[in-house]
Amino acid sequence: MRSCSRWTLYVIVDRAAAGSRPLDELAAGAIRGGADALQLRDKAASARQLLEEARRLLAITRRARIPLIINDRADVAAAAGADGVHLGQDDLPLPEARRLLGPRRLIGQSTHSLEQAAAAEAAGADYIGFGPIFPTPTKPDYEPIGTGLIGPVASRVRRPVVCIGGIDRGNLEQVIDAGATRVAVVRAVCAAADPEAAARDLKALLTRHAARR
Amino acid sequence: MRSCSRWTLYVIVDRAAAGSRPLDELAAGAIRGGADALQLRDKAASARQLLEEARRLLAITRRARIPLIINDRADVAAAAGADGVHLGQDDLPLPEARRLLGPRRLIGQSTHSLEQAAAAEAAGADYIGFGPIFPTPTKPDYEPIGTGLIGPVASRVRRPVVCIGGIDRGNLEQVIDAGATRVAVVRAVCAAADPEAAARDLKALLTRHAARR
Repeated sequence: MRSCSRWTLYVIVDRAAAGSRPLDELAAGAIRGGADALQLRDKAASARQLLEEARRLLAITRRARIPLIINDRADVAAAAGADGVHLGQDDLPLPEARRLLGPRRLIGQSTHSLEQAAAAEAAGADYIGFGPIFPTPTKPDYEPIGTGLIGPVASRVRRPVVCIGGIDRGNLEQVIDAGATRVAVVRAVCAAADPEAAARDLKALLTRHAARR
Repeated sequence: MRSCSRWTLYVIVDRAAAGSRPLDELAAGAIRGGADALQLRDKAASARQLLEEARRLLAITRRARIPLIINDRADVAAAAGADGVHLGQDDLPLPEARRLLGPRRLIGQSTHSLEQAAAAEAAGADYIGFGPIFPTPTKPDYEPIGTGLIGPVASRVRRPVVCIGGIDRGNLEQVIDAGATRVAVVRAVCAAADPEAAARDLKALLTRHAARR
């Protein structure tokens, strides 16, 4: 399960963005809409709550045969038997997380510059999150990078690069035109009136462009 | 390193309680004052910060040959090579933490009732935190238990029971009289004008009473 090479649409199931919507409903909708991978993110949850949420979502993602990645907590990812962990720059360093999770689980790393993206690859990241491309309430502390570095990162880094940060149906083509083939979204699906339709729309656009390359 | 049987004074090196005092200075003072074990607690730290703090304190505790336990994060404890983890009721369940940390590292569990203490022992806790005995700003959500259950817990549970919660020089004898032989303290050392002297005072009282039993 260490390949992310076919991902185009990565949906982050985020408790805060989901509001009162149940996470399992959201996950199921995103998958029906074509998500290739899901990430569980719940910054406010205790480890125990996160573990319970992870187990509930794993029942869904396993049926669909897509990976579930846990945000931040390598211990919860291991305890839940999830498919991997996604690390921010303030989380455990990648080699330490790898030691805990072993060679078969996926480890993704958030990066905010060309240098960080190259460093994440060198440290053994299976995929590299790159952003925030646009302003986003999820990362208020980070200056948006814009689309200008998407091409340079994609040519510098061999591992899959997943663009993230404020990407939605309205600006996705701009991101694709800049060289992106994979995106991660939070609000564009979690806060959509119809998450399944929103995911399907994004996926269709990504697939159409992929076919043209 | 799986014995806590000789602990009498367990000092929690807590970033919030320490204020501007450097944690390594505090740890060294607590050890000189007679602490048998230290716990690193920094609820506001990122995993990476906590890992760095853990590594700094481990350099000190290893020289002193006493264990360093990490609050909450089994992944950080494992990554740092610390001697164990301390779990609250909202943290990872004990069996999951044990799977991550293996049989040789210590796992402590916070408990707030006789039932929780018995359950923690059954789940394989190496030691059991019991409290809060008195009101404490560290656990504002918990009703203080008082000293009445210290005796019953000590006779029901075989693993070492460490009483915690608002214990200081002024009320320690009350806790000892109720049957406690081990206590954990936060502010009584971390926020003391002289942490080393404060630890030494508490330790002397615990040792004196232990000799009398």
